[in-house]
Amino acid sequence: MVDFAGRDIISVKDFTKEELTYPFALTREFKKRVQAHEGLDLLKGYVLCSLFYEPSTRTRLSFESAMQRLGGGVLTVAEAKRTTSAAKGESLADAVQVMEKYADVILLRHPEVGAAQVAADAASAPVINGGDGAGEHAPQTFSELFTINEEKGTIDRLEITLMGDLKHARVMRSLAMGLSRFDIKLNLVSPESLRMDPEIVGMFEKGKVVELTNLDDVLPTTDVLYLCRIQKERFASEAEYEALRGTYRVDNSLLSKAKKDITIMHPLPRMDELDPEVDSHPGAAYFRQAADLLYNRMALLALILGKA
Amino acid sequence: MVDFAGRDIISVKDFTKEELTYPFALTREFKKRVQAHEGLDLLKGYVLCSLFYEPSTRTRLSFESAMQRLGGGVLTVAEAKRTTSAAKGESLADAVQVMEKYADVILLRHPEVGAAQVAADAASAPVINGGDGAGEHAPQTFSELFTINEEKGTIDRLEITLMGDLKHARVMRSLAMGLSRFDIKLNLVSPESLRMDPEIVGMFEKGKVVELTNLDDVLPTTDVLYLCRIQKERFASEAEYEALRGTYRVDNSLLSKAKKDITIMHPLPRMDELDPEVDSHPGAAYFRQAADLLYNRMALLALILGKA
Amino acid sequence: MVDFAGRDIISVKDFTKEELTYPFALTREFKKRVQAHEGLDLLKGYVLCSLFYEPSTRTRLSFESAMQRLGGGVLTVAEAKRTTSAAKGESLADAVQVMEKYADVILLRHPEVGAAQVAADAASAPVINGGDGAGEHAPQTFSELFTINEEKGTIDRLEITLMGDLKHARVMRSLAMGLSRFDIKLNLVSPESLRMDPEIVGMFEKGKVVELTNLDDVLPTTDVLYLCRIQKERFASEAEYEALRGTYRVDNSLLSKAKKDITIMHPLPRMDELDPEVDSHPGAAYFRQAADLLYNRMALLALILGKA
Repeated sequence: MVDFAGRDIISVKDFTKEELTYPFALTREFKKRVQAHEGLDLLKGYVLCSLFYEPSTRTRLSFESAMQRLGGGVLTVAEAKRTTSAAKGESLADAVQVMEKYADVILLRHPEVGAAQVAADAASAPVINGGDGAGEHAPQTFSELFTINEEKGTIDRLEITLMGDLKHARVMRSLAMGLSRFDIKLNLVSPESLRMDPEIVGMFEKGKVVELTNLDDVLPTTDVLYLCRIQKERFASEAEYEALRGTYRVDNSLLSKAKKDITIMHPLPRMDELDPEVDSHPGAAYFRQAADLLYNRMALLALILGKA
Repeated sequence: MVDFAGRDIISVKDFTKEELTYPFALTREFKKRVQAHEGLDLLKGYVLCSLFYEPSTRTRLSFESAMQRLGGGVLTVAEAKRTTSAAKGESLADAVQVMEKYADVILLRHPEVGAAQVAADAASAPVINGGDGAGEHAPQTFSELFTINEEKGTIDRLEITLMGDLKHARVMRSLAMGLSRFDIKLNLVSPESLRMDPEIVGMFEKGKVVELTNLDDVLPTTDVLYLCRIQKERFASEAEYEALRGTYRVDNSLLSKAKKDITIMHPLPRMDELDPEVDSHPGAAYFRQAADLLYNRMALLALILGKA
Repeated sequence: MVDFAGRDIISVKDFTKEELTYPFALTREFKKRVQAHEGLDLLKGYVLCSLFYEPSTRTRLSFESAMQRLGGGVLTVAEAKRTTSAAKGESLADAVQVMEKYADVILLRHPEVGAAQVAADAASAPVINGGDGAGEHAPQTFSELFTINEEKGTIDRLEITLMGDLKHARVMRSLAMGLSRFDIKLNLVSPESLRMDPEIVGMFEKGKVVELTNLDDVLPTTDVLYLCRIQKERFASEAEYEALRGTYRVDNSLLSKAKKDITIMHPLPRMDELDPEVDSHPGAAYFRQAADLLYNRMALLALILGKA
């Protein structure tokens, strides 16, 4: 039996395959109802607090829209580091114990790995990890698994390629953990110095996961290509950067070597690594991926507040 | 037939006289209903995103209040330049294509002329130009035409004087374009170096528009005096500033030379150019002008979202 | 007859004992209804504007949650000094006269003593003083009197000890004024250089108030110990700081010398002066005190907007 009521959403590790896919049906339902501009009252009488120690747009706005579209209220602390008592030295544990007096669920973004767990341990109210440094972004994975499933009709049996800075990108880390619950083939394409955490790679059966520095060998068989940017300063050297930058840039020319029905995903914002000419490719799913965040977050909020 | 549903509000040029005055009736209705504290549900199920790359109070708060008073939700990005992916280099086109996944209408303030049009071209959702550098502020003109009409019972046949920095003030530029749709006499009072854009002046018939550096000649016949401040640094020289500063300062002594029923408008905030002693003048309309923003914005939002 | 409708909440001095305790019953009622997640519509059609010229979390979020839990809307100006026309030189009087066009009640936090009164004098809408420098924080006192009453069943006849920087802490100043309406014994514990304002001390009958530099003598008889932090830089000298810091630090060892049923209050955030080990003490009321802010603010908003 899947039961989300009262649960924190901190790490993808805490969720089974059944739990990760459980919100799919509700996500689909909310998508329909939002598109019909139904004014829902499901979370009337509930309040979300966005507590952001680092700036964010996508995560904050998608959750705040989700809460309001369900009839709930929103409290925003967009720059907690500068504008809260954190500046005076208040502990995160104390801060969330106060916040939960005014809100029923706390969405936290924090620069330190593990901060979301610290907050969840201190708070009675559910805490959602909206990104903890180079740690995780668990709700993102819930939504991106939904997007893959909607684009492809399945997750199992796919060949999925993650490309970019797999060491520092928390969305990549969380997604890989989530994908380890499924029967897929995973390709991890990154410079040597920006490899995925071996612990996460180890979650996959041998033979089901490959690490490469170059996309070429796996592009022709890839069903879903999920890329994110690599900051120039992450490369080991200027020479490595110059040698590899071409590989990590997706445009229509590169996609001509891919499957006709390839799906392209990106967490956005994009820089050079994804040419805007790709936007008109039928498999360009990144703006649909951004839209799904709203519907999936509505589902997560309704579930953890015990209203669905 | 006037139809606002789904339209952007970018430039006053895009609207006919009939369209500019069409929201008047609805504005009046919302004014009554707000003053009666009716809790409206007209935009329940809809969300506005305020996307501000420059700070603002009046524009942001009046729109956000309008949305909430109609039962809608609000997402606020008060400092987009510092706190969004713009800092990482995301294009405005990408940013609004993400925002419109979470919101049904986008209110944009941006320091660059033309930014609102760029956003509108990228977005499917309606975009409202809340100020694009020294470009325009079209919704402001919708509301200020309403205020003039309420104060005077008409716009046609009035003699209207705009005074201040007519080169840089976008509210002045937009209002002049709006007034060019009406049968009025327009006086443009500014230092030589801060003249209104000749293209806008050219929208008026010859003889219907006069440019002056001094208010004295036109004050006795002016029906509506709309002034805004001139930043000292805008003057060509310290000498010009000293020579002209007295002329551009409105107080009761100056108004003793005006029509008894003159209307005084100002976009606020005011500095030295408008003495607080004028606040008790029966024609001091600037705080009513600020209040009308709320009611007119409610009308615009209801119209472009196709709910009125 | 107690009537709050349309009233400002600026200084505790403006309220009688009957008025300070009048919201207790409504506070209790809202507490029950919030805990039952009733979605209330009492303030539907009303909007609160949070106008903060200094950062704050507790005061802003508790009021914004209160407004939303009553069905009202919220406008937030979290950093008024940097992001509003104040930066261009607009007066506070002008600013609130504009804000009240978009909101029905204004919550103001400002660094200058007396600013809330200036705002209240300019505005027709009710103004709530959410802290004016080292002046007052009147709504905090309304709520803290409620907390004392809930913890102890009475305020009269208690022995209450305020400890910390009694010179600069506005919550201490406002609370002392509020307590002067009651029949209590008050102990004021602070370094000599950080004594409570003599005018406030003078509000108490002789014999009902004592000033000390050390807690030891009054701890065994204290019913409520309310402490707040002292910033190191407030001490007259390093020597005074070192001599006194131990005295102003509350932990379980110190509390072993107190009454068994002592109540410990703190406005939060806490630093060194209150050990987290005290959190499990049955009399540790500070997180309940933080929670009561929400319910009491709901009561104040409903009352001054004439809806209760």
